[in-house]
Amino acid sequence: MSNKVQPRILPGFMELLPEDQIAFNRMYDTIRRVYERYGFLPLDTATIELSEVLLAKAGGETEKQIYRFQKGDNDLSLRFDLTVPLARYVAQHAGELTFPFKRYQMSKVFRGERPQKGRFREFYQCDIDVIGVDSLDIVYDAEMPAVIYQVFKELNFGAFTIRMNNRKVLNGYFESLGYADRIGDILRTIDKLEKIGREAVEEELERFGVASADVSKILEFLAIGGGNDDVIAALRAQSTENELYREGVEELAKVIGYLRGFGVEESAFKIDLTIARGLDYYTGTVFETMLNDYPSMGSICSGGRYDNLAGYYTDQKLPGIGISIGLTRLFYQLKENGLITAGSSCLARCLVIPMDETLFGAALMAATAIRGAGIPADVYYQNKGMKQKMKYAAKIGVPYAAIIGGDEAASGTVMLKNMENGEQRAVAVADLADAVR
Amino acid sequence: MSNKVQPRILPGFMELLPEDQIAFNRMYDTIRRVYERYGFLPLDTATIELSEVLLAKAGGETEKQIYRFQKGDNDLSLRFDLTVPLARYVAQHAGELTFPFKRYQMSKVFRGERPQKGRFREFYQCDIDVIGVDSLDIVYDAEMPAVIYQVFKELNFGAFTIRMNNRKVLNGYFESLGYADRIGDILRTIDKLEKIGREAVEEELERFGVASADVSKILEFLAIGGGNDDVIAALRAQSTENELYREGVEELAKVIGYLRGFGVEESAFKIDLTIARGLDYYTGTVFETMLNDYPSMGSICSGGRYDNLAGYYTDQKLPGIGISIGLTRLFYQLKENGLITAGSSCLARCLVIPMDETLFGAALMAATAIRGAGIPADVYYQNKGMKQKMKYAAKIGVPYAAIIGGDEAASGTVMLKNMENGEQRAVAVADLADAVR
Repeated sequence: MSNKVQPRILPGFMELLPEDQIAFNRMYDTIRRVYERYGFLPLDTATIELSEVLLAKAGGETEKQIYRFQKGDNDLSLRFDLTVPLARYVAQHAGELTFPFKRYQMSKVFRGERPQKGRFREFYQCDIDVIGVDSLDIVYDAEMPAVIYQVFKELNFGAFTIRMNNRKVLNGYFESLGYADRIGDILRTIDKLEKIGREAVEEELERFGVASADVSKILEFLAIGGGNDDVIAALRAQSTENELYREGVEELAKVIGYLRGFGVEESAFKIDLTIARGLDYYTGTVFETMLNDYPSMGSICSGGRYDNLAGYYTDQKLPGIGISIGLTRLFYQLKENGLITAGSSCLARCLVIPMDETLFGAALMAATAIRGAGIPADVYYQNKGMKQKMKYAAKIGVPYAAIIGGDEAASGTVMLKNMENGEQRAVAVADLADAVR
Repeated sequence: MSNKVQPRILPGFMELLPEDQIAFNRMYDTIRRVYERYGFLPLDTATIELSEVLLAKAGGETEKQIYRFQKGDNDLSLRFDLTVPLARYVAQHAGELTFPFKRYQMSKVFRGERPQKGRFREFYQCDIDVIGVDSLDIVYDAEMPAVIYQVFKELNFGAFTIRMNNRKVLNGYFESLGYADRIGDILRTIDKLEKIGREAVEEELERFGVASADVSKILEFLAIGGGNDDVIAALRAQSTENELYREGVEELAKVIGYLRGFGVEESAFKIDLTIARGLDYYTGTVFETMLNDYPSMGSICSGGRYDNLAGYYTDQKLPGIGISIGLTRLFYQLKENGLITAGSSCLARCLVIPMDETLFGAALMAATAIRGAGIPADVYYQNKGMKQKMKYAAKIGVPYAAIIGGDEAASGTVMLKNMENGEQRAVAVADLADAVR
């Protein structure tokens, strides 16, 4: 082997064996189907962008992670998310698009992170965004969680909760207490509440110059809980007159109302005032999604409302709202938690097995009959003993094997074996598709 | 605009507007569905590979086109096809795969070519391959064109011909004439027959030291035509005793026989002795596919049999056969030739239009009823006049608009308008899904 190159890939890249790839694709297809059902249009932007364009906004951590390179005279970069390419695309094609523009994109993005467990350098993001010109109705803030609700219902990995908040509520409230200049610091601290605990948060807030009495107020405010209507009532009952705050509360109330209109179960969404997300980016409604029984997974789908998508590229004001599912990471976590059970390593419903080479013609006819009904089927052609052929069928996990010997070929039948319970019976080729469906 | 970055991408990258993306995805989905129906398993390899591994075999032109870059300590490259990653993957996971291993991969590949009309630097390849260990039955040489036949039948872009040959026939024939040492030169010359014409080919062959009498023989041989059985008969009737030649002819005969077993129409496949393809790579059956009415497109799907997939990575002998559709280029060519007709720029079957904001609830219920039946639907929420709302519906090309005013909301109906013929009628929300299906 000394003259061979060792076949391998870099850490941080997910490559799956067929049975896992089938499970992965099933998730991908489910998400895509729901996105399309809600009227989102497909988009597939270039993987390689001009660095000058892609990195117009980036800086700091993001920039360090970019796969960036020179080719000829061009300074190029691989996309690191799907939002910047969307901004560029919408600015570039604004005259050709119909607004509100609802698009989905489910593609790989690339980040040269230090590899660690559960972190990927190349991973799928499954994004939807709605972009308006100048304005975008608040009802879209409810459509996003309604889509997510449908996605996770159909993915069927157990109970989940979409946690929602509105940045105007937080920003307005902190403004009303006189901390308009420290909102970023306060939000970053609050965001750590679950991780570092109440006492550490109190200390940190005081370090930022928040008065001790206000610290208590803030923590009491963030702890407002109960049913969604209770939270709305409690928020409305606050004494602050801050306009931004009032606007945020009424937006939350509207979103809650519309969500019910979308048929989303009450147990699946919950106002949580501690949710802040993407500090520089989001300006209104924000979401996170948690699997109830697997809180350690963290948020499996997040997003929110932003005021202006493409300010770096155009003077047109393009408000929008978007959410993203990090599918590669989600798949990895589901598998780690035993929620992806080893499936079959084939898509075929039936493997046709001719006893020998002289029966290939009959086998082809049987396979063609199944495929003609749109059902995946395969034929085993290799010249092996019958025992090995059946072993192959068992190994790939195909539900049915259709065995064809001379008698079957002569009578236009197959011996159809149910691979799960071992039962077998003669079936006419004409009835084969129905029998394996 | 002076402080804005101009939103743009590099030439040679295909980005589509929604209506074209929908048409593109329809082709992508059709190809994938057929591949799966024939039992091919999905694979999705890493986009970024280690250069040492990816370029184990490459050289010359290929190497110049690679997007190659350093990140940290790693010398990395973007894949330039899907065959080398397949070889690496199969060598890496041989112990975990079941052979024959049938896989499809439909992903983007990257080549830093000089941009020119119809050439892309980032494009989709849609590949299927079957890999055996030590041996692989000849019937797979017929399954490949059978799959391609089904793909292009379902894509429905008119009559097409799969042109087939066998490299053993060519190599054996040239060996028998005493040119074993010049087969590459001869093949390269023959390959230009359609482009440069008979006389130029004669001259070039003589320049390679082919005797004048043999030049005539060769050109006569290559001109053997007629029905597939006629060609086989003519090939069998040749006086040469060369073993490789005889093997190749019998392989061709078998493939023709199996193709009929697969139910492929006789008019769709044709032996063409001038087809050579990928000189260093293919060792048996080779294919090309042409749209009969658009010969200038060239081959839209090509492939063939190879003796050993992964010799650079493993001592295991892995013979296989594969074909590839260059989907990005094909889509471009079909559009250039007017075969992709401008479709609708929406996936939704129905746009629900509430007259005003108070009717959002009723609109949501109507949309949910349609989506519940698995049918894409959308709602128009923006606060605009009725005329503008209808204009939006016409612009996106949605087949139906469901208008909801106060009367409709009160009676649980919508006013359903057929956007094509303008007819409208009241439809109960419960019947809406059926009405727009």
